[in-house]
Amino acid sequence: MLSSLIQRNNTKILLVVLDGIGGLPVNGLTELEKANTPNLDRLAKTSATGLHIPVDYGVTPGSGPGHLGIFGFDPLEYKIGRGILEALGLGMEVKATDVAIRGNYATVEYRDGKPVIVDRRAGRISTEENRRITAKIKENIKEIDGVQILISPGMEHRSAIILRFPEPLPPGSDEVNDTDPQKVGVSPLSAEGKNPNAQEVAEIANKFLEKVAEILKDEPKANYILLRGFAQKPDIPSMREAFGLEACCIAVYPMYKGLASLVGMELIEFEGSSIEDEIKALKSVWESYDFFFLHIKKTDSYGEDGNYEAKVSVIEEFDRLLPSLLELKPDVIAITGDHSTPSVLKGHSWHPVPLLIHSQYVLGNTSERFTERECLKGEIGIIPAKKIINLLLANSLRLSKFGA
Amino acid sequence: MLSSLIQRNNTKILLVVLDGIGGLPVNGLTELEKANTPNLDRLAKTSATGLHIPVDYGVTPGSGPGHLGIFGFDPLEYKIGRGILEALGLGMEVKATDVAIRGNYATVEYRDGKPVIVDRRAGRISTEENRRITAKIKENIKEIDGVQILISPGMEHRSAIILRFPEPLPPGSDEVNDTDPQKVGVSPLSAEGKNPNAQEVAEIANKFLEKVAEILKDEPKANYILLRGFAQKPDIPSMREAFGLEACCIAVYPMYKGLASLVGMELIEFEGSSIEDEIKALKSVWESYDFFFLHIKKTDSYGEDGNYEAKVSVIEEFDRLLPSLLELKPDVIAITGDHSTPSVLKGHSWHPVPLLIHSQYVLGNTSERFTERECLKGEIGIIPAKKIINLLLANSLRLSKFGA
Repeated sequence: MLSSLIQRNNTKILLVVLDGIGGLPVNGLTELEKANTPNLDRLAKTSATGLHIPVDYGVTPGSGPGHLGIFGFDPLEYKIGRGILEALGLGMEVKATDVAIRGNYATVEYRDGKPVIVDRRAGRISTEENRRITAKIKENIKEIDGVQILISPGMEHRSAIILRFPEPLPPGSDEVNDTDPQKVGVSPLSAEGKNPNAQEVAEIANKFLEKVAEILKDEPKANYILLRGFAQKPDIPSMREAFGLEACCIAVYPMYKGLASLVGMELIEFEGSSIEDEIKALKSVWESYDFFFLHIKKTDSYGEDGNYEAKVSVIEEFDRLLPSLLELKPDVIAITGDHSTPSVLKGHSWHPVPLLIHSQYVLGNTSERFTERECLKGEIGIIPAKKIINLLLANSLRLSKFGA
Repeated sequence: MLSSLIQRNNTKILLVVLDGIGGLPVNGLTELEKANTPNLDRLAKTSATGLHIPVDYGVTPGSGPGHLGIFGFDPLEYKIGRGILEALGLGMEVKATDVAIRGNYATVEYRDGKPVIVDRRAGRISTEENRRITAKIKENIKEIDGVQILISPGMEHRSAIILRFPEPLPPGSDEVNDTDPQKVGVSPLSAEGKNPNAQEVAEIANKFLEKVAEILKDEPKANYILLRGFAQKPDIPSMREAFGLEACCIAVYPMYKGLASLVGMELIEFEGSSIEDEIKALKSVWESYDFFFLHIKKTDSYGEDGNYEAKVSVIEEFDRLLPSLLELKPDVIAITGDHSTPSVLKGHSWHPVPLLIHSQYVLGNTSERFTERECLKGEIGIIPAKKIINLLLANSLRLSKFGA
C-alpha cells in the first residue's frame, strides 16, 4: 500500500542509528538516563518520541533483522542468512549469483583415511594465523567447475566463503546442510542439497572441502574447514524501489555497510572512523542524496562489553556532536537504535528501543529527554520498527493521500 | 517463529490470574484504585506495567478465549466450543475421541405424538432436581452403538454430555446443529451433521434424545433435553510443545483447571479453596515445574455480582498474601486477569486488563500502583494478550536471538 503513495520531493531525511542504544537501569538509571545530554534533551522536547519493537515482543534481534526493520523492511519476511551476514561483515560484496558460507577452521585426525574432528575451532588459532592459512587457500583455489571461489579471513578460526556462479541462482539454491556436525569425535558431514539447484551448490562445496583438506593437510591445527549457514542474497527491494529514496550509508564497520548495500544504499567512503569523521563525510555528500543512514557502533560495542560507563561516554560524545548534525537542517531527523544492548545483559536484548523523530510537523512537548522512560510519554507510542519509515516519509511530505 | 527461539533453562515463571481484575470507576475510583494494596504498589513500582487486550479492541471475551490468550495462544485461532467449556466447567475430562454437548432440560407437550416445546428451561428446575434426573439418565444410558455416554448435572436446568467414541474423531466431526430451536411452540430439531463424520455423531445424538425422552416421559417439568454447542476438543499444542515449559495449574474451579489441562498443564490437587490454600499448594510443588498458573476466582465472581466492595476486599486479601508469593523468588512474576469484570457492568467487559511483569530485566519506575490508569504509564504499553508469553519467556532468558 505504502509504495502506491510514494511521491518524491527535495526533502532530506537523516536516520541516525546509535547501535544498541536501549539499556536497563544500573543504580536506577539507564545509560541514556545517566548521560549528560543537553542537546539531545533539547531536541527531544520538540520532537515526536516513542519506542520501537525491532521484530516482535520479547524477541532479541541480531544485527541483520535489527537493521532491516529500521530500513522499513519486515525482518520476518526478509531473512538474512548467516553466511551472507558473515561475508558482509568481512567487507565482501554479495551478488545474486552468490552463495555465501561461514567457514570455521577445525582440527581433524585421519583414522582409516577418514577425517575425524578433534577440535571444531582449531584451538581458536590467532587471527594472524587465520590470515596466513586463508591466503594459502585463496592462492590455490580460484575456481571450481566454472564457479568462482572467494574467501576472506575473519577473527580467530572464522572465515567467509563465497561461491560465485556464472548466473543468478533460483531461490532455494542455498538449502544445503551445515557440514559441521556440532560435535567432536565424528567425521564432518558432506554437503547435500535439498533440491537439484542446491545439490549443484553442495557439489561445489564438497569439491572445495576436498581441495582445502589437501592444501591444509600439513597444518598442525587448522587442517580442515567446517561450513555453516549456506545463504543466498535475500531478494529485498532497494530503498529507491520501495520508498523512492536515493539513500546512502555512512558507517565504519563492514557489516552495517553490507546491510545498507543489501537495500541499495550507496556506501560513502571516507577517512577515519570517529563519529566526527562520519559527520564530516555526511556533510560532504549532503547535496547528493535524499536519505542518509548514519551508523554509530560504539554504543553497542560497550553495551556488549558490559561497560556501562563507556556506553554513557559514547552517548555524551554523540550529544556534543549533535549540533553540527542539526546545522544541516534535515527536513526530518530520526534518532534511534537497531535494538537495545543493556550493559547489564552484555548483549542484544528484546527491549523496545527509544525513537525520536523531529520535523516541523510533530506535536512535541511530551518528553523531557531522549531516554527509555521519557520516550514512553511520546506521541509515537510503541511501534514495530518497520513502521518507522512510514513516519519518516510522512514527515518529509513524501506520501500522498490514501483514498479519495 | 517464537518456537524456533525457545531455549530451556531452570528459571521459574509465576503467572497470577486475578480473574476479571479490570474494573471501572465508582465515585471516581476503580476497584483496584479503591483497594488498599501496599504490597502490590511496591511491586508495581519496580515492575514493567501495561495492559493487555484479550481478543481484540472492544471485544468482551468469555473465560475460554480470555485464558487461552494469557496462556500464549491466539483465541481467534483456537476456539473452544460451548460443549467443551461446559464439560470442563463441570469437571469432566475431555479427550480427542469426544464430542461434548451442553444439555438443557426442557418441558415438552406431545401433540399428535410429536414433542412441542413449552418451556426451554423446564421451569428452571432446582439443581437438586437436575441431579436426580441426570442420575436417572446416567443409570439408563451407558453407551449407544459402542459410543460411551457421559453426563454431568450443572446448575438449574443445565448439564453436559460427552459422546466418547472408540477412536479420535477427524476435525469437523462436531459440525452438528443445536437441537434447540430457540423458541417455544415448535418441535425440537433433529441433530444433523454437515459432513459424513458429523452425521455419525448426529445419529448417536438423536438416539440419545430418543432414549432420554423415554426415560423422562413421566417427569412433570424436565421431560426432554435440548442439545447445544456440539464441540470437539480443540487441537492446541501443549505449553511444553509450544514454549518448552513444564507447566502446572493451581485453581479451585473446574473450568479453569479444564482450560489449563487443554494446554497440557498438570493440575495440582490440594485441600481447601482459599487463596492461602492455593499459595500453600503452589509452594509444595515449586521445585517441580517451570511455569505456575495460579488462578484466583473471586475478583470475577464479585464483579459479576456487581459487588464493588467485595471485589475490593478480595484484591486487598490478595495484596496481604502477595509477600508470601514473593518469598518464592520467581525469576519472573506476572500479575494480570483474563479479562475485565467491572462491577458496574456486572459481567465480563472489553476493557484492557492491567498487567504487571517483574524480573531483573525491566525498567520499572513508571507506575505508582497496579491500577488501570497507572499501568497506562508503563513500559509494556497496550499489547495483545497472546504476546504476554513472549515477554515472560524473554524475561526468563528462555528465547535465543533471532537472526544473525
